[in-house]
Amino acid sequence: MQLGSVGSCQAGRLISTNAGGTGVLRYGNMRQLVLGLEVVLPDGRVWTGMQALRKDNTGYDLKQLFIGAEGTLGIITGAVLKLFPRLTRSATAMVTIDDVAKAIALLHHMQASVGNRVEAFEIMSKSQIDTVCRYGNGLKNPLASDARWYALIEIADSDPDWDAGAQLERCLAAAAEKKLLSDAVVASDLAKAEAIWALRHNVSETNQHAGFTISNDTAVPRVPEFIATVEARLSGAFKGAVINHVGHIGDGNVHVVVVLSRHVYTTPAACEVAAAEINLIVHEESVALDGSISAEHGIGKMHVDRLERFKPPLDLELMRAMKAVFDPNGLMNPGNIFKR
Amino acid sequence: MQLGSVGSCQAGRLISTNAGGTGVLRYGNMRQLVLGLEVVLPDGRVWTGMQALRKDNTGYDLKQLFIGAEGTLGIITGAVLKLFPRLTRSATAMVTIDDVAKAIALLHHMQASVGNRVEAFEIMSKSQIDTVCRYGNGLKNPLASDARWYALIEIADSDPDWDAGAQLERCLAAAAEKKLLSDAVVASDLAKAEAIWALRHNVSETNQHAGFTISNDTAVPRVPEFIATVEARLSGAFKGAVINHVGHIGDGNVHVVVVLSRHVYTTPAACEVAAAEINLIVHEESVALDGSISAEHGIGKMHVDRLERFKPPLDLELMRAMKAVFDPNGLMNPGNIFKR
Repeated sequence: MQLGSVGSCQAGRLISTNAGGTGVLRYGNMRQLVLGLEVVLPDGRVWTGMQALRKDNTGYDLKQLFIGAEGTLGIITGAVLKLFPRLTRSATAMVTIDDVAKAIALLHHMQASVGNRVEAFEIMSKSQIDTVCRYGNGLKNPLASDARWYALIEIADSDPDWDAGAQLERCLAAAAEKKLLSDAVVASDLAKAEAIWALRHNVSETNQHAGFTISNDTAVPRVPEFIATVEARLSGAFKGAVINHVGHIGDGNVHVVVVLSRHVYTTPAACEVAAAEINLIVHEESVALDGSISAEHGIGKMHVDRLERFKPPLDLELMRAMKAVFDPNGLMNPGNIFKR
Repeated sequence: MQLGSVGSCQAGRLISTNAGGTGVLRYGNMRQLVLGLEVVLPDGRVWTGMQALRKDNTGYDLKQLFIGAEGTLGIITGAVLKLFPRLTRSATAMVTIDDVAKAIALLHHMQASVGNRVEAFEIMSKSQIDTVCRYGNGLKNPLASDARWYALIEIADSDPDWDAGAQLERCLAAAAEKKLLSDAVVASDLAKAEAIWALRHNVSETNQHAGFTISNDTAVPRVPEFIATVEARLSGAFKGAVINHVGHIGDGNVHVVVVLSRHVYTTPAACEVAAAEINLIVHEESVALDGSISAEHGIGKMHVDRLERFKPPLDLELMRAMKAVFDPNGLMNPGNIFKR
């Protein structure tokens, strides 16, 4: 497709940021979905790599450089994307879980039994579910529970002979026997499935309503350890703060969201100081566990200093060398990824 | 893993060439399986990107440059690879098909019904099957047929509740009703499944026994058109040559193998001239259809001139610029991808 219209500008942005979301578990990031690209280079020449090929080993795979470069090497104006068979069967459930380690064990249990048909597996802390239900205009938690964690699970496939609901129920029953979950509800129709997913999709908006919100985007190899450490430090440093977690646990990608009271943090300056402190804590703990300070949202302007601080010098040197090859005059998206 | 031992040198090579094979359909090329890399750069410094992360959007994804670079930018000495749940159920079939377009339609039919559980889908021309059975030390074609094409199909998954054999039979019966295949055999046990796959795995060796063999490795968006055109040109130019096709049809990746009689092509010089002519025909037709002259095996030394001829000048310029950044003195694998 050529990316000329408004909707397709969005597609170019998704490729430039190597975007991800709840579908990464099954389909990968944007990088895994791009077969071909067309890019306008800073000198005005158009690089055309619009191959519709799943295999092409003829020298360096130049398109990989532009994916996730946040527009600093050129402007993406066309793309060829992978497609998948249309899904015809699906089932959705919401479950309560004691701790994050069990959420990971439950995901593995699901993958061992339904394989790649696990379409989505998202975790939310009870605090996050409570925030969504409190500010979400009638959104309801279908599981009245004091459990600390929730998982939202969808399995789906194109197979018309498959009874997805029956398999999800069997699979969750076996997980309950293994004590991987405490309570579960399987959506009996599409409306109920959508009501479950609405809890997830209203996270950002309801967090904004709840107070002054500082959101992070980290991926780490060992999520339970990361959450325990970061939560201990954050709750020590910010008394009364609400700490919400929402994450793509299958990707090791957790969004730690700190909600501060607008009654306490009343000035932009106070908010700015708190946000910087919170981000630093989250980033330090992520890097200490060999994690990333930006899993799916990129560096932009906001994290340029942080990248300089945490990225190894050799990485920065090689990245600057790439930038110098494509954009020696620094015309493209200046101030993003690199300092001006 | 650190790639120090003999077996793991092989792993480094597979990453350096972005290797593929019968598993690409489901799991992707090597590029899709690599999470982290360690690379010794030409100046002796070690670049360490051994992240075990499925998501990391912190600047340019440098590891992508080394994957498929055929050792021309550095030497891969460590890697972190993605793993998948162990498969516990599988079923294998071999079918006869009238033409390549129907093979593609059959693959889509399979994917629409068993989704991502299609583990492998390989096509072989009758000429190729005949060569394998003639020189394959007792290998037998389980389908006595005059059909022009064969497909070898495997479906597999971790799901312990799944009756893979029953679903494969249902799926192929439905395909037969749609006239997508003419005859089929489903392996009733593992030994029979292995006997079917032995036909595929003995292609290279038996082709070598059959005569002087010129093999190609192309990927094109429209395989039926490519095969028809290339076969017409080759059989016109090389009377009496046996033309065998074997391919990963789901990836658009076909190996056109021309087998020339050793009684006719008796001198190295004659073989060399014929090989050059055959390669040129295959590459010309591939490029004419927006295909690749090397789908999974790379450029090496053999196709350097061909790359110069068919790759757009801007691609070559950017590739040389990358090479100059990492290896300005041309120390790494000289003569590969680029001219000395």
